Amino acid sequence: MITLGIDFGGTSLRAALVDTISGTILHSARQPTPALDGPLAVTQAIASLARDVLAEGKDIQVGGIGCPAYVDLNSGRLLNVPNVPGDWPAFAFRDELTRLVGHPIHPINDVRAITLGEWKFGAGRGATTLACYAIGTGIGGGVVIDGKLHLGISGSAGELGHQVVDPTGQFCNCGTQGCLETVAAGPAIAAAAAQAVIRRKPTLIASLIGGDLNKVTPAVVIQAAHQGDAIAREIFEQAGQYLGFALVNTMVTISPQRILIGGGIGTAAGDLLMDPVRRTIRERSHMVPMDRIQVTTTQLGDNAGVIGAALWAETQIN
Amino acid sequence: MITLGIDFGGTSLRAALVDTISGTILHSARQPTPALDGPLAVTQAIASLARDVLAEGKDIQVGGIGCPAYVDLNSGRLLNVPNVPGDWPAFAFRDELTRLVGHPIHPINDVRAITLGEWKFGAGRGATTLACYAIGTGIGGGVVIDGKLHLGISGSAGELGHQVVDPTGQFCNCGTQGCLETVAAGPAIAAAAAQAVIRRKPTLIASLIGGDLNKVTPAVVIQAAHQGDAIAREIFEQAGQYLGFALVNTMVTISPQRILIGGGIGTAAGDLLMDPVRRTIRERSHMVPMDRIQVTTTQLGDNAGVIGAALWAETQIN
Repeated sequence: MITLGIDFGGTSLRAALVDTISGTILHSARQPTPALDGPLAVTQAIASLARDVLAEGKDIQVGGIGCPAYVDLNSGRLLNVPNVPGDWPAFAFRDELTRLVGHPIHPINDVRAITLGEWKFGAGRGATTLACYAIGTGIGGGVVIDGKLHLGISGSAGELGHQVVDPTGQFCNCGTQGCLETVAAGPAIAAAAAQAVIRRKPTLIASLIGGDLNKVTPAVVIQAAHQGDAIAREIFEQAGQYLGFALVNTMVTISPQRILIGGGIGTAAGDLLMDPVRRTIRERSHMVPMDRIQVTTTQLGDNAGVIGAALWAETQIN
Repeated sequence: MITLGIDFGGTSLRAALVDTISGTILHSARQPTPALDGPLAVTQAIASLARDVLAEGKDIQVGGIGCPAYVDLNSGRLLNVPNVPGDWPAFAFRDELTRLVGHPIHPINDVRAITLGEWKFGAGRGATTLACYAIGTGIGGGVVIDGKLHLGISGSAGELGHQVVDPTGQFCNCGTQGCLETVAAGPAIAAAAAQAVIRRKPTLIASLIGGDLNKVTPAVVIQAAHQGDAIAREIFEQAGQYLGFALVNTMVTISPQRILIGGGIGTAAGDLLMDPVRRTIRERSHMVPMDRIQVTTTQLGDNAGVIGAALWAETQIN
């Protein structure tokens, strides 16, 4: 079956025709997200891109869209969209997008879509129970249980980045404090690196940014770590340890066969993050048969989102 | 249907004939657990009690038993039995018990059994997804997802007491460190009270124990708290806050409709524990529709275990 899959990101939009039998992308297009122009303009841009892509196929009746948001599956509205300004809760996103595209378009949280894509065609193949962590600007997640994406109330299950791992720690974009996201996502990694430079610790990061603190990004910290920089490595050790605690919580709660780590930073950091994650798990998780839980990186990269969105759409056909 | 349900506790054994249609107990008997006599003697005592109870019914073909253990559902062995000494992993518990009773007896973790009982006939009725925390000497748990007890690998899902909530904290019976169990179960509550007495803090606990630190129990701390003792109340505040963090993690991971708090201490402490739990959840959990997640105490008390064990047995009939 060929289905439309859309990836609605904070900076770019992508739409694709997905063969959901083989998990291959037949045609795809991108454009920047007009993120500052408000919900209607963003939705019009998505619809326009979707129509362009649909013109390349035929008889495609339905689409799915992964959104950087808390998606209320009942109303089809986006209740919390941290990186795209506007009064989203007041905007009938699903209905408006469906009207503009001319076919039913089913929204779902972006990392839930990635989870579906990786489960069916990526690093999650063959598992019946798995969890996926996507580490980028924030930390999203998704959970598959007994061969089904587990949604919970209004699709809110799988918000793995909002586990409390540092109760007295930093405030979080979600409005609370000490979430995993505050200590292991991109901004936390960049902030720790900036602190190291400010405190004049001996780190390559200082020269890599040429003294300009605005240039501190997770990518720079990764670069320094790969060059053997001890401070940069320690930053990933810290983040990986917290991520490991969160994975232990996931393990003892749902005892999945596999846990996937992806997202821009999860993928780029690779073993810098996975080594401390795996060590923390070995040290902490004695109540589950850990040797039977694989912890691995995602495989589909950028394609997981559109593939998963298409898969999601097909589950929504009556 | 009438089925045998057994509750294997560290101090007492209970067997019951359970009407699993109505959730009522038709006949039940107890005896102390010969915990120090080793796996074979304990299993013989269980079998003897089971046979006595079976003699009160007829045509009962199967039984279930809730065990204070990590139960490997594949082998039917008890791989970790913190409170009952002996080389349990080497002992073919399910096979031996089945042989001695003369009917298949299916073991499951004790709190998973409680979860089943409460879900079908207690505080969990009507929910399709729920989590149960039982707080006693340790903290056990169970998870129901989409209308089914979720087992995970070899039945290890639901070990909610072994979430990491205090990474640099106390060592845990499970062999690791900082588990919820180390800060919110009975021994942690008693230890905090003993510390308060030793440090000569102004607390009623000192007079309630007549100066004998061996008499510090969670029950004494509850008594003091009910008499308005600020130190005792603060001890439950602390425990309840950690428990609240764990509940937040459960909420963001599986987004259940209901979370049940039970076990000897959970039940006896009541609002002393539930108030800080609920407050912590309100403060922390912004990513799930918390107002739609009920947090409540269990209802069946001591009966949940035998009822749940009988329900478990019926799921195991081919």
